[in-house]
Amino acid sequence: MFRTHTCGELNLSHVSQTVTLCGWVQRSRNLGGMTFIDLRDRYGITQLTFNMESHKTLCEQARSIGREYVLQVSGKVVERENKNLKIATGEIEIMVENLSVLNTALTPPFTIEDESDGGDELRMKYRYLDIRRNPVKQALLLRHCLASEVRKYMNSQHFVEVETPVLIKSTPEGARDFVVPSRMNQGEFYALPQSPQTFKQLLMVAGLDRYYQIVKCFRDEDLRADRQPEFTQIDCEMSFVEQEDILQTFEGLVKHLFKNIKEIVVPNMPRITYADAIKYYGNDKPDTRFDMKIFELKDIVKGKNFKIFDDAPLVGGICATGCALYTRKQIDELTEWIKRPQIGANGIIWVRWNNEGIKSSVDKFYNEKELKKWFEIAGGKEGDLILILAGEETKTRKALSELRLEMGSRLGLRDKNTFACLWVTDFPLLEWNEEQKRWNAMHHPFTSPKPEDIELLDKNPGGVRANAYDMVINGVEVGGGSIRIFNKELQKKIFSVLGFTNEEAQAQFGFLMNAFEYGAPPHGGIAFGFDRLCSLFGGSDSIRDYIAFPKNNSGRDVMIDAPSGISKEQLNELGITLKTFN
Amino acid sequence: MFRTHTCGELNLSHVSQTVTLCGWVQRSRNLGGMTFIDLRDRYGITQLTFNMESHKTLCEQARSIGREYVLQVSGKVVERENKNLKIATGEIEIMVENLSVLNTALTPPFTIEDESDGGDELRMKYRYLDIRRNPVKQALLLRHCLASEVRKYMNSQHFVEVETPVLIKSTPEGARDFVVPSRMNQGEFYALPQSPQTFKQLLMVAGLDRYYQIVKCFRDEDLRADRQPEFTQIDCEMSFVEQEDILQTFEGLVKHLFKNIKEIVVPNMPRITYADAIKYYGNDKPDTRFDMKIFELKDIVKGKNFKIFDDAPLVGGICATGCALYTRKQIDELTEWIKRPQIGANGIIWVRWNNEGIKSSVDKFYNEKELKKWFEIAGGKEGDLILILAGEETKTRKALSELRLEMGSRLGLRDKNTFACLWVTDFPLLEWNEEQKRWNAMHHPFTSPKPEDIELLDKNPGGVRANAYDMVINGVEVGGGSIRIFNKELQKKIFSVLGFTNEEAQAQFGFLMNAFEYGAPPHGGIAFGFDRLCSLFGGSDSIRDYIAFPKNNSGRDVMIDAPSGISKEQLNELGITLKTFN
Repeated sequence: MFRTHTCGELNLSHVSQTVTLCGWVQRSRNLGGMTFIDLRDRYGITQLTFNMESHKTLCEQARSIGREYVLQVSGKVVERENKNLKIATGEIEIMVENLSVLNTALTPPFTIEDESDGGDELRMKYRYLDIRRNPVKQALLLRHCLASEVRKYMNSQHFVEVETPVLIKSTPEGARDFVVPSRMNQGEFYALPQSPQTFKQLLMVAGLDRYYQIVKCFRDEDLRADRQPEFTQIDCEMSFVEQEDILQTFEGLVKHLFKNIKEIVVPNMPRITYADAIKYYGNDKPDTRFDMKIFELKDIVKGKNFKIFDDAPLVGGICATGCALYTRKQIDELTEWIKRPQIGANGIIWVRWNNEGIKSSVDKFYNEKELKKWFEIAGGKEGDLILILAGEETKTRKALSELRLEMGSRLGLRDKNTFACLWVTDFPLLEWNEEQKRWNAMHHPFTSPKPEDIELLDKNPGGVRANAYDMVINGVEVGGGSIRIFNKELQKKIFSVLGFTNEEAQAQFGFLMNAFEYGAPPHGGIAFGFDRLCSLFGGSDSIRDYIAFPKNNSGRDVMIDAPSGISKEQLNELGITLKTFN
Repeated sequence: MFRTHTCGELNLSHVSQTVTLCGWVQRSRNLGGMTFIDLRDRYGITQLTFNMESHKTLCEQARSIGREYVLQVSGKVVERENKNLKIATGEIEIMVENLSVLNTALTPPFTIEDESDGGDELRMKYRYLDIRRNPVKQALLLRHCLASEVRKYMNSQHFVEVETPVLIKSTPEGARDFVVPSRMNQGEFYALPQSPQTFKQLLMVAGLDRYYQIVKCFRDEDLRADRQPEFTQIDCEMSFVEQEDILQTFEGLVKHLFKNIKEIVVPNMPRITYADAIKYYGNDKPDTRFDMKIFELKDIVKGKNFKIFDDAPLVGGICATGCALYTRKQIDELTEWIKRPQIGANGIIWVRWNNEGIKSSVDKFYNEKELKKWFEIAGGKEGDLILILAGEETKTRKALSELRLEMGSRLGLRDKNTFACLWVTDFPLLEWNEEQKRWNAMHHPFTSPKPEDIELLDKNPGGVRANAYDMVINGVEVGGGSIRIFNKELQKKIFSVLGFTNEEAQAQFGFLMNAFEYGAPPHGGIAFGFDRLCSLFGGSDSIRDYIAFPKNNSGRDVMIDAPSGISKEQLNELGITLKTFN
């Protein structure tokens, strides 16, 4: 062993011991007779002291050492004169007696500090240096702890972790698969799994009863800022359960994580139906750290010659508490913001109630009594500001949701260290695909409809609710799942509603449907986005820092320069050629 | 919840409770007035009893139920008359009062019993039924427990589990990569990792200090019986350590696993150099459950006109204890066995010492005194049989190794429930590639030579020993690793010995070599084959049962029928075309 202790553990109890440490040079300071070096490793930072009088050569050697050099030093632990109580080792320092430079280092392209001067691409190119920075290192350690606590909880609940295959079969449904050409079966391809969905269901047919896996999944999508082509799921499935059992079990998981990782006791999670989430938050993953629910004015605002309201299928608003003093300029700015193409609303109608009374942008059409009624409906009072949007239902709800989140942020109601968890339930089973003029499964074709809605499958497919649920934390969908269909007749029915012929269903899902012939138990499950969960626990908006070696928005690993060309011989062996393109 | 208890937990303490169970019908028996059904779930089997007199309809319904139907039953727990003390629930049965068939089942293509009548392909095609069989289910549960204990130990030693990427860059070295065409970067490919080797070294450069991961790896090889294109490794790396620290840490891991999984206390592991392993066992992964070391006779057998010995660079033998009574027929059979092309020895010279004295197949050339000397060298005595092979060094040692293992098996010295662990150390750094007339790295090009052998790099590269080590259990290499080079000059030297130009080294390993410029710590690691470790703990020769969904020898998943063709659109999007072939 190159060391006796780490750079994070020495304190006053070690004074006068001779120790050996290893680590990287964080910084060094020459103060005439003394030279100080902060030596860093994964566990912390320890101050090294070199005395010019007693150890001249050593001290001169120390002065020649650059940042990020790798050192091995030994010396005596002594109490510091100037203590630094912010760090665990801040009460001691090492009077160095021996110094060995284990490795030199070029000057890093950015500083190894909490706040780095490296841009995103530079940080990713030199990820091995970026990880030396405390925030990134802590993010990876947090991820490790989360994974570890997930397993602890799942094991305690008798779940078995099973590894499902990575080289599977491509299915035309859903997002694009990454494929892998087979050399031994030329002309054929494996696909990388978008999720282990079918395998976990097969494990239930196999009788494993409770399965989980922390598993890499793959999706060949055009990447948005915060998507990665490979991502990690906590994938789970249980047999002989109803929806309630799954909600209880996985609410338990998330409570366990909050308690053990963040020492936060999460109360029982509220539940809201999909329909109510859309109605009150405009959005199926509401951020419930703050209230500010959407209210509707439709009935009472019609027929007052205000054409915008008269023509609008939806007139909805939110009440911004304490914002009555918003200036005209602030409201104009908000109006510009909501008119941007990403949201595309036409404008904002506002009503404010301050000590001068109630004033609005529609004073021409509505008198104070009427506006006061609006405040009543909104649950508002003197001091508040009501913001109203009107227009087509879906688009307006979306815009209201954005406006609500924006106001929440402006009012400081979305603190990253506050956590609001809830379940969204009763998702629609189907969604209409306008392009293909057919119904698609909202979740996947094995999701079970609510028994009481099955009779709607023919007359009103859009009205059928599913036994499907999402867990939402702070407006982020962290997990989602469903109870599965395990009855052959019902499965056939669903396929027919989805417009599959028997043959198509068999070709795409044959092996799962065959398996279901041999005694499938009632079962259901859930999957959590692990990268997202980590970033949420870390209080970050970006998942990248929680992935050791992430890819950029073009799906490139800029550090190793992948993807890259391969040799003609490799292509030949695989039996594929590249299309020439200019 | 569909049940109050599982099928594995009820015993006399539950008598007279009303319970609800779910599971599969293992078998049913009609005995006139009574019908018995064994109900099975993951946790066990519970006997259900239907009484024709008191519950006629229920009993008739029970009689119509087939194997593998999925049932939900409730009833009272009663003490059994005919107890079955072999199973945990064997003292009770359930007097069924309610029965609900949750799902029917076709007759399985093979029986769901410990010994199955399904062939390998059939079992893999219906893997979800195969897993219902106890031995396969237990194999997967064992795998889960092993993974869980690995993590427990590694976490206790402050290792951090870090997920490394699956979509990486293809390198021409080593085995064939599986590649993944990139749609967003047409004409370019990702590769699936054969191991996270470079990433774990980068994590050491990044200062993570102690890394591990239980991780899928991929190798596009022509598959032998017991290889899988995707396999799982326990991958580990440590900083600021010497070889001894790694051996201690991972000897600790394996001891922990034996203790916690099999309640076996493993003694400190013996160590043997590669040179001695070859000398005494003919093999770098000796099975040390039994002794039977190879001895050499060369010096004393020459010059007696026995041409075979006179011409042979190596005359070596083993002593089969207690085999003096082997018949001529048995020895002939052994001779035929060793002459098979897989081994290809020319024949066996034998000497036996029974109560009639010493007799051999070379009595014409050697007298009893001389033969007795052989026994002395072999460590044999009256009652033993000496088997001798002669010929070219490498081939003969290999044949002796095979013969030794075969005799060990025949003598019952290779019990699957006995475990002999050892470290093989001091592997050669390089091996000569006769085809390409150059030196190859035996492990990989980052393996550190022993400091005292560095001076041999120029004059005698083949004589340079590496700081590389394997852990061998019962003749199986379960893990292997090395101390890495972290010094740029030494790394350059090794690349030059391996015949790389600077440019080639940069092109293939550039990002790792760049990283090493920024302060790489001394580090080393090891990787264990997790599938193999599981099968070893399970006492099986095959790894397949320890993989939930294995592939066959052609790399096919016969259950889901992968690999398979993909659509023209997919190929177009990827910018590749298939070569036409007949």
